[in-house]
Parts: sequence; C-alpha cells; structure tokens
Amino acid sequence: MCPELSISTRTRTTPFNSRVEACGVKAYMVYNHMLLPVIYRSLEEDYWHLCEAVQVWDVSCQRQVEIRGTEAQQLVQLMTPRDLSNAQVGQCFYAPLCDESGGMINDPILIKHSDNHWWLSIADSDVKLWAKGLATGFGLDAQVSEPDIWPLAVQGPKAEELISRVFGEEIRKIGFFRSRMLNYQGTKMLVARSGWSKQGGFEIYVNDMELGGQLWDELFAKGEDLNVGPGSPNLIERIESGLLSFGGDMGYDTTPFECGLDRYVSLDADIKSLSLKALKTRKPKTKLIGLVIDQQVKLIDRRVFSKGEILGEITSDSWSPRYSVHLVFAKCELSLIAGREHVELITSTGEISAVITELPFDFNLLGLRGLKNRPGL
Amino acid sequence: MCPELSISTRTRTTPFNSRVEACGVKAYMVYNHMLLPVIYRSLEEDYWHLCEAVQVWDVSCQRQVEIRGTEAQQLVQLMTPRDLSNAQVGQCFYAPLCDESGGMINDPILIKHSDNHWWLSIADSDVKLWAKGLATGFGLDAQVSEPDIWPLAVQGPKAEELISRVFGEEIRKIGFFRSRMLNYQGTKMLVARSGWSKQGGFEIYVNDMELGGQLWDELFAKGEDLNVGPGSPNLIERIESGLLSFGGDMGYDTTPFECGLDRYVSLDADIKSLSLKALKTRKPKTKLIGLVIDQQVKLIDRRVFSKGEILGEITSDSWSPRYSVHLVFAKCELSLIAGREHVELITSTGEISAVITELPFDFNLLGLRGLKNRPGL
Repeated sequence: MCPELSISTRTRTTPFNSRVEACGVKAYMVYNHMLLPVIYRSLEEDYWHLCEAVQVWDVSCQRQVEIRGTEAQQLVQLMTPRDLSNAQVGQCFYAPLCDESGGMINDPILIKHSDNHWWLSIADSDVKLWAKGLATGFGLDAQVSEPDIWPLAVQGPKAEELISRVFGEEIRKIGFFRSRMLNYQGTKMLVARSGWSKQGGFEIYVNDMELGGQLWDELFAKGEDLNVGPGSPNLIERIESGLLSFGGDMGYDTTPFECGLDRYVSLDADIKSLSLKALKTRKPKTKLIGLVIDQQVKLIDRRVFSKGEILGEITSDSWSPRYSVHLVFAKCELSLIAGREHVELITSTGEISAVITELPFDFNLLGLRGLKNRPGL
Repeated sequence: MCPELSISTRTRTTPFNSRVEACGVKAYMVYNHMLLPVIYRSLEEDYWHLCEAVQVWDVSCQRQVEIRGTEAQQLVQLMTPRDLSNAQVGQCFYAPLCDESGGMINDPILIKHSDNHWWLSIADSDVKLWAKGLATGFGLDAQVSEPDIWPLAVQGPKAEELISRVFGEEIRKIGFFRSRMLNYQGTKMLVARSGWSKQGGFEIYVNDMELGGQLWDELFAKGEDLNVGPGSPNLIERIESGLLSFGGDMGYDTTPFECGLDRYVSLDADIKSLSLKALKTRKPKTKLIGLVIDQQVKLIDRRVFSKGEILGEITSDSWSPRYSVHLVFAKCELSLIAGREHVELITSTGEISAVITELPFDFNLLGLRGLKNRPGL
C-alpha cells in the first residue's frame, strides 16, 4: 500500500485543482510547494495517450520568478552561463542557472518580455530566494517576485489543432520556443510553443484564477473529437526523450557539463555570468549516462556496479513499452566509466548487465525499432 | 479516496525511511524536498500518545543550512531582525528571517556553534539559496552549504527519561533551547532541548546515515516500558500550542508583527539587519488571530466573514479533543477585525459563529478545562 499524501495549507492551490480531482487523478508529487498531478489512469496508459492524442496538464508548479527593473537582464545573465545578449522579445531559453562554483541552482525556461522584464519558469527549487539574494547583495535595480501565474500545458500530436480552436489560427505561426501574448476572454496571456515532453505542444501562462478553470473546460469541450484527456509530465515519455529532472538527475553539486547540458553554456561569450570562470576550469567529476537493459526488470538497488566496484548511482529509470527495454539515467564517476561498455545493476531476480550509452538515447543507434502505436489499437 | 504520493529521486532519503515504513506510516507531507511522516495511527491517537508518553520523530526535513567563515555571524544577523550579539555557543534561537521589505523568508531555529559557524534549522523554503545569494552579492566571507544532517526529535513527557538512557544523565542539565555535543557510538552529535511541540523533549542532529538507524532502534528498545512509539509534528498539538507553520500561517508577504512574532524582533538593537529599517516603519496590514468554535465542525470554505463581508482567510484549523472545541488560525485584515469579538465561518451544515482570541490560545482565559488524559484511560 502506498502512503497517502497529507495536504496542508502550505500546499498552494491552482485554478485547476477541482478539475484535476474530477478527472480522477490517482497520484501527485509535491513540486515548488504545489501539487503536481502525475498519474490519471496508469503510467503506461497515460503515456500512450500522450503520444497519440492531446493532453491538458496542470503544471502550475512551474512557478514564474519575475524580474523587473533596468538591470533585470543583467541579473538574469549573472545567473546563467548561457549567452542572452541576442535574446529577442518573446523568445524562450532553456538555461542552467549556476552559482560561482559552477554548481547548478535550477534549469528553468527563461522568457524575455523586454530588457527590463524577464520570467524564469522554474524547476523544483526556490529560485526566487537566489535571485532576490543576489539582487539585494549586488544592489541591482531588479525587483524579484513570484506572481500568481499557473502554466497549463497542452501536449501531444493534436495539441496544435486543439490550441488553434481556442486561440485561433495565429498560434500555428508561433515557432518552437517562441511565444506571443494572446487574448483569452479579454485577458492577455502568454502562449509559448514549449512543454516538458517531446510530443509537441504549447504552454499557456494562465494569469487569472477564474479564467483558468474556464480555459480548462473549453479545451475539454473543443477537443472531444481529438480524444483530449487529462495528463501530466510522464516518466516513461521523459526518460525515452532524455528530459532531465532537477533535484533528481542533477542538483547543486553538478555542473551543466556533468549532465550533458554543454550546449547551454556559452564558454566563449563576453558576458558577465557568476559561473563562467569556474566552468572554464572546473574538471567534470561525474557524468550522467544512459543505461539500457533488454528486458523488464525491477531495480532494487540504486547503485551501479562493475565486478563489485561501485561506479555511481541510478537517478531515474523506467520501462519503455515502445522499445521493450528498461531505460536508466545514472550519475557515474567519470574516471570509473571511461572506456566501459557495460555495467551491472541489481534487480529483484539478481544481477543484470546494462549497456552504456550517451543521453538522450539514440534508438536508431541502439538498433531498436519502436512501436508507433499502442499494441492492439 | 485520498490520492497517493508519488515518490521520485527528487525526494531525498533519510536514515530513518525504512524504520518509518516498518512502523506503518499512513501519510506523508513533502517538506524541503523530503518526506515528513505525519500520521501513524490517526491524528487523534497520535496526539494523545504524544501528550502522554514519548515519540520518536523523523524530522530530517528540518534541513541545516550551515554558514562558516569569518563573517558567518554577520551574514546570519543580516538575515534576521532578532539581536544575536549576545548569542552564546550552543544556544538556539527561534528567529524570523526577513527581507529588505520586512517580509518573512523562513522561521528557523538558529544554532550557534561559534562566531564562525552557525546552523539554521529551517522550515519549508530553500534558505540555502537566500543565504548564498546574499553572501555572493555582498562578497562576505561566509560559505553556505546544506550538509547531510538529519534531525531526530524525541518528544513527549517521557522524552527526558528516554534520552538519558541513551545519552546519559548529562542531558538533564541541558536547558531549554540549549545544546551540547554528545557522544554516540564514538561520533559527536548535537543534542538540543527543543522540538516542534509543547510536550517537552530533545532534537538529536544525526550526522551519520548508519548510526541514525542504530539510534532509532536503541530508542525503541530502551523505551519499551515508557510506551515509546513513532510520531510526528501533530496538527492538533501544534494548533493547541499555537505553533505556526511557515508557508501556511505566514509567508513571504507577512512581517513577524503580522503573525505575532513581535518578541523575536529587536527593533531597538544596534545591529546590521536587512529588514530592521522596513520593520520600523511598515504598518501591519493583517493579523493572525485565533478563532474558537464550541462544537466539532467541518469547515468547507477558507474565508472568514462578518455579515457577508470577507475579513480574511483560515490558515490552519483542527478539532481539539482535549478542550472539545474547534480551533482555527486565521489571517485577517487588521482594519476589518478591530473591535470585533465574533466572526462567521462556513461549515458543512451552514454558517457558524466563532469567537476571536489572541494567539497562542489561552484556555484559562477562554474558560476551557482540558482533559488531562485520554477519555477512558
């Protein structure tokens, strides 16, 4: 029996709570002091539905840290080693935030409203306190707040069609990681082509408690023929897609290089960023790798072995129904895995060998042919 | 049916996880990215047991933010408006942390190891990021980290007896909110007379994963005749005792004055604290008050009314089996409750009147006679 989740007033409400419950949510996570629904039918049913149809996700827990002021962009640039000098209004950037030692603080989506106005759509840590502490200490003209914005994600192959029925054909012109301020019932909301899946879709930055519920209902009403349903970030899908979770797959002790986020670090840029100096010299100690097991297993030990030696630990894992393999992310000592092709993991039926691979998984390279659709459909 | 809690690797483990499960934990909260067990038998059974016997609590989620360096005390003082100039080694201080506007960031217990070494035993927000941001921005010689320390609380009237059986008679000499470094199996651990209940007891700052499990087992083995059992911060007990929960009863938008923490603000002290200036001038807008209903009710609306006007909102509430009243904390507009003696709340059977009182509840003043023991025992 799984223990229950006790919900107190410390857990902030969202405009969608009652809808999520009415849809029969089965399990939550707590994320940024909020409820994140994670299972409706079953992990696997939710997965196939996400890959085939369209889902509406309450991801209000992706809180917005808002930075305003004449030195807003300066503060944001200080926090990330990714070069933002050419950022355009409406553009979204996946970017690691790092401290002076190069360790990661969070991995938000940065959204530029203007030079003087940014949002950080954050993963699970109180980035507001970090930004505010820096702004206070450095005496920057940058006001940091966490306004009530509750992102609603619409994800899946039919997301564009559904969103166009609510927001109009204009949304088809929004490019990947671009956004526009669109009108909903007389209120302007940011709509971006983004989301924490690789199935395509949008995120609507809902800024009105009441309109949020209305929008949810309208998406369901207008998406009936598209088989719209409730959903959430899905463990199977995000592991297959190689999407990392801050606090699980990487954390304060890891640099972007140690978790494969190299391309989001602008080492040669002429920017004022807290972490650049450290990132130029700090030697990576660990590496986040992929492991593939050619059968369904239950892992009962988080450690990664080779002939009894501990090489690292599992950070996330899931069975992949599409490829019929068990997929694992593992954080390993760089020096201990160099040159290796296999490691051993401990399952409920004993030791098993797993193939080492880069992340994200390249299923072509691995010679795996995925099911396009749910078996039997 | 209550939804389940989905536990990922984002949720950090504690030395006591397996023991907590073996004891049959029924519900968790997530607190500082960790599991906080909150119910074992039932809220009420756990309550009576806490008040009569002795409980062992896994409160690992009270993370320690460690500050070291020649300017450590300076940084801690910057963060809190409570005067720390006369702090002694080993002393513990309940202290609000506030930002430049006087808004609260957290309400930790501060523990002084030395001028150059402090711990902040925190409530539910990433204080590490706040402290680190300030240290970085102000360029202070103060290294901020969050070491693996997992507090284990032993609470209840028989706590002193139980702790003395494990740590020796010396512990009886530890005064309230004082601590000592004591030896356990060859390892020094901080033991303080403190804890999040008013039933008396200690907190052991466990610093070794393996010894933690051993200590748990020893407490249970040596406390059998004291009726030792697993427990946790208990909603009924903490409401009766007037203990506030950060993020629920108060938050970033409230000053210490607005939630009755006046005596932890040293307005006249000659100290360098970020918030003092604002706290001297900022006018309180809200007040955290107590409400008492003379019967058992189910509140179905968080709002507090008077003749249809909204005065504020409920932040926490519980039935009190000892006093046979329903107790409520509510955050109300100061200007709207001035001079009032009653408000109205909405229950499952309609509107009901509640008496306004100060916090913590003064049951003598309220003319309530509490049961000393569980009925029928």
